[in-house]
Amino acid sequence: MEKVNNEHYIDRWRRKYQIKNVLARNLLAEFFATAILRFIGTGVLAQAILGRGQYTSVQVNLGWGFAIALSVYSAWKTSGGHVNPAVTAVLYILGKISFTHSVCYCIAQTLGAAFGAALSYEVYIEAINDFDGGVRSAFGTNSSTGAIFASFPAPYLSNTGAFIDQVAGTGLLGLFVAFFCERRNQIPLFYQPSLFGVIAAMVGVCYSMNMGSPINPASDLGPRIFAALYGYGWEMITYQNYFFWVPVVAPMVGAVLGAYMYVLFIGLHIPDQETKYSLSSDEELKPLKF
Amino acid sequence: MEKVNNEHYIDRWRRKYQIKNVLARNLLAEFFATAILRFIGTGVLAQAILGRGQYTSVQVNLGWGFAIALSVYSAWKTSGGHVNPAVTAVLYILGKISFTHSVCYCIAQTLGAAFGAALSYEVYIEAINDFDGGVRSAFGTNSSTGAIFASFPAPYLSNTGAFIDQVAGTGLLGLFVAFFCERRNQIPLFYQPSLFGVIAAMVGVCYSMNMGSPINPASDLGPRIFAALYGYGWEMITYQNYFFWVPVVAPMVGAVLGAYMYVLFIGLHIPDQETKYSLSSDEELKPLKF
Amino acid sequence: MEKVNNEHYIDRWRRKYQIKNVLARNLLAEFFATAILRFIGTGVLAQAILGRGQYTSVQVNLGWGFAIALSVYSAWKTSGGHVNPAVTAVLYILGKISFTHSVCYCIAQTLGAAFGAALSYEVYIEAINDFDGGVRSAFGTNSSTGAIFASFPAPYLSNTGAFIDQVAGTGLLGLFVAFFCERRNQIPLFYQPSLFGVIAAMVGVCYSMNMGSPINPASDLGPRIFAALYGYGWEMITYQNYFFWVPVVAPMVGAVLGAYMYVLFIGLHIPDQETKYSLSSDEELKPLKF
Amino acid sequence: MEKVNNEHYIDRWRRKYQIKNVLARNLLAEFFATAILRFIGTGVLAQAILGRGQYTSVQVNLGWGFAIALSVYSAWKTSGGHVNPAVTAVLYILGKISFTHSVCYCIAQTLGAAFGAALSYEVYIEAINDFDGGVRSAFGTNSSTGAIFASFPAPYLSNTGAFIDQVAGTGLLGLFVAFFCERRNQIPLFYQPSLFGVIAAMVGVCYSMNMGSPINPASDLGPRIFAALYGYGWEMITYQNYFFWVPVVAPMVGAVLGAYMYVLFIGLHIPDQETKYSLSSDEELKPLKF
Repeated sequence: MEKVNNEHYIDRWRRKYQIKNVLARNLLAEFFATAILRFIGTGVLAQAILGRGQYTSVQVNLGWGFAIALSVYSAWKTSGGHVNPAVTAVLYILGKISFTHSVCYCIAQTLGAAFGAALSYEVYIEAINDFDGGVRSAFGTNSSTGAIFASFPAPYLSNTGAFIDQVAGTGLLGLFVAFFCERRNQIPLFYQPSLFGVIAAMVGVCYSMNMGSPINPASDLGPRIFAALYGYGWEMITYQNYFFWVPVVAPMVGAVLGAYMYVLFIGLHIPDQETKYSLSSDEELKPLKF
Repeated sequence: MEKVNNEHYIDRWRRKYQIKNVLARNLLAEFFATAILRFIGTGVLAQAILGRGQYTSVQVNLGWGFAIALSVYSAWKTSGGHVNPAVTAVLYILGKISFTHSVCYCIAQTLGAAFGAALSYEVYIEAINDFDGGVRSAFGTNSSTGAIFASFPAPYLSNTGAFIDQVAGTGLLGLFVAFFCERRNQIPLFYQPSLFGVIAAMVGVCYSMNMGSPINPASDLGPRIFAALYGYGWEMITYQNYFFWVPVVAPMVGAVLGAYMYVLFIGLHIPDQETKYSLSSDEELKPLKF
Repeated sequence: MEKVNNEHYIDRWRRKYQIKNVLARNLLAEFFATAILRFIGTGVLAQAILGRGQYTSVQVNLGWGFAIALSVYSAWKTSGGHVNPAVTAVLYILGKISFTHSVCYCIAQTLGAAFGAALSYEVYIEAINDFDGGVRSAFGTNSSTGAIFASFPAPYLSNTGAFIDQVAGTGLLGLFVAFFCERRNQIPLFYQPSLFGVIAAMVGVCYSMNMGSPINPASDLGPRIFAALYGYGWEMITYQNYFFWVPVVAPMVGAVLGAYMYVLFIGLHIPDQETKYSLSSDEELKPLKF
Repeated sequence: MEKVNNEHYIDRWRRKYQIKNVLARNLLAEFFATAILRFIGTGVLAQAILGRGQYTSVQVNLGWGFAIALSVYSAWKTSGGHVNPAVTAVLYILGKISFTHSVCYCIAQTLGAAFGAALSYEVYIEAINDFDGGVRSAFGTNSSTGAIFASFPAPYLSNTGAFIDQVAGTGLLGLFVAFFCERRNQIPLFYQPSLFGVIAAMVGVCYSMNMGSPINPASDLGPRIFAALYGYGWEMITYQNYFFWVPVVAPMVGAVLGAYMYVLFIGLHIPDQETKYSLSSDEELKPLKF
């Protein structure tokens, strides 16, 4: 491709267009990474629902695990790859990000999720029309497809039960965010987003039966509003006595609770030197030759 | 968040509240990590049983693999992340932990597992009530849910067969604990908990059919007692001629047996220098540039 | 084995037969690696189709993930392991490969894919004959097996919808190729092909329902032509108004689009120094002792 | 535990009982590691067959992947962890092991596989009796369980087709063994057994439909003979015109063929310096800070 004075045009773009303002470039990265997350995640849910049972639960959970791992990688070196207001909340209470920046992050994430879901809707529009005959329905009938875009409760689940469910699932997430933030745990940076994917899949295999484990206010609210505006109607919001606020509020509570539990039970007490109780003590190890 | 003299409040907490007593902080970490393990694991089993077949066996096995990997990571740098009396027993015979400390570890793990299961019960209480109509039953009927909290034998399985099964499954675990303890194997510390997850999933895919591969006395006994006290009744304990002691005793035997087999067959004989029989000999390798 | 003057015969072969011409050896590597990819991938699809539902969707997606990871590894240190014209296109626009070389790469990949599929056909010929009674059919009947070799659209899917689908799926791929090309992301080289496998599996779990997520013009076109010539007839090409060109052209568009989106939204703006917004800041970290 | 002069008893054992003879300790390690492989693998197959369809194909394939990864790890630093005569054959033609040692390895592996299968049989004996009513049958009836111990062909498969199938599957294995042996590929040693697991799972997802992808003469023949002697009768050997020799001979041919293909197409031509065609060129990378 064209080079001027031996400089590649991408490098020239970088020199010219790189955003120097930290907040601006971080919000752009959060918007984009959360869009990726939800572009993948919406596709996973679309296949699960439109496939009428040909896709197993384990595929949905692995799918969200892949989505989290890859979207976190994408923004890892810019904004930190939070892609979730609940993660941002934990970093706020741990002093890694200011309150103002946190609020901006949450807005960028919600807009990004809505954008990603909208793109995914375009890809699956023919499949959805084939499934519901062109009549959109939020939830509860055999041809409802609203659950592609936002979580809904199982028939037995009260809003109180849903709140507890989201505190539990996001509590696990928040706990491990605090774990990664503790540098004494020495998880290599390149490996952390992979483990985030494992955590997301893990929450799915243990706490997705009640309401599908959204554990992410942005990823749940943004696409829900998009769907409400774009054919599914206000039942997306009003279903079961305005259920929608549960997966928005409860994850924030759960993530902070989980993070503090990690800090109090384990994080504060990690010794600065290696414990002799670990399996292979470091002091005996010669440097690993790869 | 608030900072005094530029010190973050988490750092101040650490300075003020860090537990200096090694045993105390390790027991706290074991309690918490085993609670995480069983909080995840109980959720996995709840979905498998309450879902009436919509969740496949592979999801249960991957789920326990995720649970082990992540709970071991959480306490890795404090107590070593045993989360299982059978693991503690292997570290004891390998001289990594004293007898008194080992006993304390086992108690902390059992209490932690009961606590984690109790939390999980709260999350799934509406789903369980929907499943069994509010009538708790330990095992054997279509609406029994006791197997969410503890292992039960397949119809064909005698208590002797169950004992052999748990010696086999935990033997595999103990073997690989001894493998990791051998520093000449040079598995990077950050990667070991991930492999622990693989081992847990592996035991599930090969030895879970007989009785569900508990392979962890704390994770099986703690939640079993909780369930017995909390609505399921003493059938949790008395079922099939007091079956409950098998997954408590057999794993300790199996883990020690497996560890000694590894030590005798392989561990003692690992050369201090690299073998020329490995695939790519280290001596030829230049340092890896990442 | 025989050694002359203490030199192993493989080393002697290397000295004698090593191809010094960079393009020639790279094309050989691309041919071979794409043959591996499609030799594995065709087997995965053969099992899915000939198995009449005993293989789940998650196995197909994991299978293609394994196929990509391993085939990329195989040519990683020679040609870069593109194994996909869409990947080559992204490297071209990022200035990593010249236009002429890119075109040669695409041809080698297409021939390699056809060769790999032909080998796979030999392995499954008895199974295919058992399935269709020896009467080959491209698509649409209960005994059609053409989808083992190339993608076909779901009944509801128009060619326009198919184009959008492939732009979406390959867009995700192109995005992450650009991500890996950005050295500031610091993903270790040995780990990148593993993540490529995750990306391939990810596209399968979110965008394979419409038409099976080929996202690779060489892997789709080469085996399609082989099958057309080798018993399946020209319906492989002419089906649904010459659908075949969609998975050839759309992935090129999608990959370039995805790569530019990554560059514009994130890549250009990655700071040269570590961001303080990442979870554990590098500056606080002592070197990791393995 | 007891210490004499501050020396742990395991260290004393090492000093006293370490086997200094390289071949002896390697054969012990191969015996033990192949026993582990087949102890796990037999359990995986037992669940698949005795579970009457409650276990999916993806679990079987992942299970064998776990089994290979973990058994290779166990002997990695002693004998190299071949656990498969086909792997030993590749290392022989690549000059890593002598002919005499290779033959001894193959015998140790076969005995180890038989021993592992025998142990596994003891664990599942009550389940097998429940399944077949105590009447052992090798293959072909609804209550046949011989396929737990050895491979059998699908109804449509001729012995010629089976030979081709095993050359294909083991060809993929041999190819990647040669890949790992090439130090220029720079895969870290600790990561190689994990990738071996991926390779084993990969062969299962693409070439297991014809006859179950044994791709390991020791793992197939040893347990087959054990089962023939231990209740299943000589039909284990005589089935379909002495089918049993196919998975013994074909993998040796396939592995060598695959290895040479890798060497000729790629291995010989890998440049000593980094190619500029790889995604992120090493020369631009600063050392990765973990």
